[in-house]
Amino acid sequence: MSDMTDLAAPKRRRGGGRAGHSARAGGHVIDQMPWRVPVNTDRPTEPLPPEGVQAIHDGAMRVLSEIGIEFLNDEALGHLRAAGCRVEGQMVRFDRAFVEEMVAKAPPSFTITPRNPDRAITMGEGHMLFGNVSSPPNAWDLERGKRPGDMATYREFIKLTQYFNCIHFAGGYPVEPIDVHAGVRHLDCLFDKLTLTDKAVHAYSLGPERVEDVMEMVRIAGGLSHAEFDAAPRMFTNINSVSPLKHDWPMLDGAMRLARRGQPVVVTPFTLAGAMAPVTLSGAVMLSLAEALAAIALLQWIAPGCPVAIGTFTSNVDMKSGAPAFGTPEYIRATQMTGQMARFYGLPLRSSGVCAANVPDAQAMWETMNSLWAAVQSGTNMVYHAAGWLEGGLIASPEKFVMDCEVLQQFQRYFEPSILGTTEADLALDAIAEVGPGGHFFGCQHTQDRYQQAFYGPFLSDWRNYEAWQGAGGLWTAERAHGLYKKILAEFEPPPMDPAIHEELAAFVARRKAEGGAPTDF
Amino acid sequence: MSDMTDLAAPKRRRGGGRAGHSARAGGHVIDQMPWRVPVNTDRPTEPLPPEGVQAIHDGAMRVLSEIGIEFLNDEALGHLRAAGCRVEGQMVRFDRAFVEEMVAKAPPSFTITPRNPDRAITMGEGHMLFGNVSSPPNAWDLERGKRPGDMATYREFIKLTQYFNCIHFAGGYPVEPIDVHAGVRHLDCLFDKLTLTDKAVHAYSLGPERVEDVMEMVRIAGGLSHAEFDAAPRMFTNINSVSPLKHDWPMLDGAMRLARRGQPVVVTPFTLAGAMAPVTLSGAVMLSLAEALAAIALLQWIAPGCPVAIGTFTSNVDMKSGAPAFGTPEYIRATQMTGQMARFYGLPLRSSGVCAANVPDAQAMWETMNSLWAAVQSGTNMVYHAAGWLEGGLIASPEKFVMDCEVLQQFQRYFEPSILGTTEADLALDAIAEVGPGGHFFGCQHTQDRYQQAFYGPFLSDWRNYEAWQGAGGLWTAERAHGLYKKILAEFEPPPMDPAIHEELAAFVARRKAEGGAPTDF
Repeated sequence: MSDMTDLAAPKRRRGGGRAGHSARAGGHVIDQMPWRVPVNTDRPTEPLPPEGVQAIHDGAMRVLSEIGIEFLNDEALGHLRAAGCRVEGQMVRFDRAFVEEMVAKAPPSFTITPRNPDRAITMGEGHMLFGNVSSPPNAWDLERGKRPGDMATYREFIKLTQYFNCIHFAGGYPVEPIDVHAGVRHLDCLFDKLTLTDKAVHAYSLGPERVEDVMEMVRIAGGLSHAEFDAAPRMFTNINSVSPLKHDWPMLDGAMRLARRGQPVVVTPFTLAGAMAPVTLSGAVMLSLAEALAAIALLQWIAPGCPVAIGTFTSNVDMKSGAPAFGTPEYIRATQMTGQMARFYGLPLRSSGVCAANVPDAQAMWETMNSLWAAVQSGTNMVYHAAGWLEGGLIASPEKFVMDCEVLQQFQRYFEPSILGTTEADLALDAIAEVGPGGHFFGCQHTQDRYQQAFYGPFLSDWRNYEAWQGAGGLWTAERAHGLYKKILAEFEPPPMDPAIHEELAAFVARRKAEGGAPTDF
Repeated sequence: MSDMTDLAAPKRRRGGGRAGHSARAGGHVIDQMPWRVPVNTDRPTEPLPPEGVQAIHDGAMRVLSEIGIEFLNDEALGHLRAAGCRVEGQMVRFDRAFVEEMVAKAPPSFTITPRNPDRAITMGEGHMLFGNVSSPPNAWDLERGKRPGDMATYREFIKLTQYFNCIHFAGGYPVEPIDVHAGVRHLDCLFDKLTLTDKAVHAYSLGPERVEDVMEMVRIAGGLSHAEFDAAPRMFTNINSVSPLKHDWPMLDGAMRLARRGQPVVVTPFTLAGAMAPVTLSGAVMLSLAEALAAIALLQWIAPGCPVAIGTFTSNVDMKSGAPAFGTPEYIRATQMTGQMARFYGLPLRSSGVCAANVPDAQAMWETMNSLWAAVQSGTNMVYHAAGWLEGGLIASPEKFVMDCEVLQQFQRYFEPSILGTTEADLALDAIAEVGPGGHFFGCQHTQDRYQQAFYGPFLSDWRNYEAWQGAGGLWTAERAHGLYKKILAEFEPPPMDPAIHEELAAFVARRKAEGGAPTDF
């Protein structure tokens, strides 16, 4: 292999495929791939026959028309009553034709433009967007173990979210900072999100003040007028139903506030088969869709054409412990089935990069890989929790974050069309003739011309042999990831922001804190 | 979650899906899924457009007709000369029409029946067969670290191969037992393989005596006459070309010996893009196919209709170190592309469950999952190295073996059609109406009737929350797998064998050892 080493050592730079050419876009610790949104060109895996798709659609329509969905929000009930739905107390039953008509108004894709327009992301059209882990109450790392989330740790994950080019948006709080009072937490969190990242951000739909504050802060950060903000998607929210069959007040309130201002709403029921949903997968998927479509119908009624997406979070419980399991065979199939249904409805799809493992070990990665391949196979457009998730979402881990980014980069590389070329030059008959039987391709011109961009170049994987790996300390992947995340944080530089905007944002936060922030009694 | 626990704890047995019903087929340490060959019902991922398939085929034909392949075997050269191929020295050039005609004679599928006919396996028809890691020189485990293979360790892996129902065949030696002299090693190894397992076995094509001895031992173990042995596949071999463009003597000799007796030959070039093959993927795939088709054409000429398969082992080198990398984006695409070509030729496909990682950690599993998903996506029929592989094939690890079997069971479960039902009972509208908004499905009759078989039940994954996991010792997956493999070995019971056959086999081994075994000077 000495030829190879001689050839490659002085010239080869880290970074995969075309990344080899890129500037060190994200810093100096690693040479990562440049910002790029992968386009999923694979034919989706479709486990349902056409009659299966129809059966689930018919079932979802029957749930909506015969059983009904509870809306714990008077404003929403008023809208739905006005729309002609059958409202009894908080229970709403929908005519199938109304639901179908409303869902058809939703756009098949939309683009969210954050304060840095180079970080605009399109939901739909085959795009595959990756976001950070969102909402764990706890953090874990190799050094500090498991502990409740705090603001310092929150900030670490936000920096990782910005640092990695393969992370396209900043979802929910990567860890809940419980050392900041809940009434003002969203102000501090969004200030950090908007100053430490320049990527599209998310607002929790947890009360009108929070939602309005976040929209205003995103507007300020983007240097936008109110009209400019309302003119196009600048951020998004994700709402969860209370499965089975219920939408609660703050989620509906937030969703309606965003929809009225043209901001995207992802509706993600959490239907755990055997717990909050039927033990059968098609039943759980059908229930999830019914809940999602009920909210989408409401939003399309009050803001026709507003950007929405279907989220899937259908998995199964561990029937021994009742704990949720993720990245299981059932999870994969449910995600694929939901993908078929999302295409049937013409809506973008959100799924997740999830696992049940408690530490960033082998199980964590086989479960996460199942989740990510399910995202590919389902035609998922937005992958929530794509980096850093452990313990079924109860832990955020920086080691897992770094591991996941290595894997996400590999998916980016996987979707590069250049891998698949079959031109005369790609087929390389001349090189094969030149090298001949028993020769090798290290030194031939065909290799020389291409080797720098030919293959994915990892920043975390160790591809050396055992002895070289052992000689370098024999570090397991989680240990290597631990070292890397600390170096990344030590070197982190926030993206540029106009000082006047920074000041305006800070002043807004100070004013809203002085006003008491948001109520915390819901 | 107490409802769930009350419901499940006393009744729930380990084992996934329908496995819940099965007897403890493989022993008492774990309740694994029963023997079952998964049928891959997913539409394959086809990255090449039709003109790409044609370009690679045309290229492979040009390699065979214009550049040629070296056959380092006079008998093979004689056959090919008689067939009308252009032979100059050891270089053979093939007419395209001849290759196409010969390849068309190969059957699209075939069934290998080992001594236990219940363990018969079909190559082709969508079946997905999993085999143990084959041929590492070294073993590694958490307790003993890395060390050269020996007979005691070989035997451990053979027992694991038999124990796990998800392992369908016994491939090459799971570790090379270097403490047994190479001249008689095959006799001891096959004796153990044939007595400790009842699954289909493999013969190395490393010299006529070895191949003939193994065929004879398989015949004896099956209680077969020579005519019965010759009448149908009972075992198989896998041959590798010496890429680029060369087939060596013993591999060709073994392949021809098996083909003449109707025993299957898998032809697997090892075309590492950038080293033994062009740096471009389509070039590496094309070269691999040309080498495979050259051997297949030879075998179909001497034994028309003999069972053969295309093997793919196209991956890329790490351009920094020259080391082979596995489970990379390039590996996945190359495997998918080869799958398209295997379907184009109407031949079964072999690929592998491989990784570059040195220890059974997170990297090992994300790379292995990429390999296994590539196997699914390519329509692979035979997955070599599906359990136990580390360090690019230089290490066999029992912890990795156990981990991989957990994952292979999940693929089995993934392909169970029952997951995908959309009958009225599956959709569960009645149960949803019964449970109503905000209720839960734990206790309802629909769940009660199904929960035992509803979901995959793991034997290695830990789905408990962090505190419960920590309370049970906080073991990472590799540690849990270590404990499990030792318990499995302690409990292992060999499959039954007629004492007369056992005696005949032992006598054969003794006689052949007395005769000096096989020469070791090649």
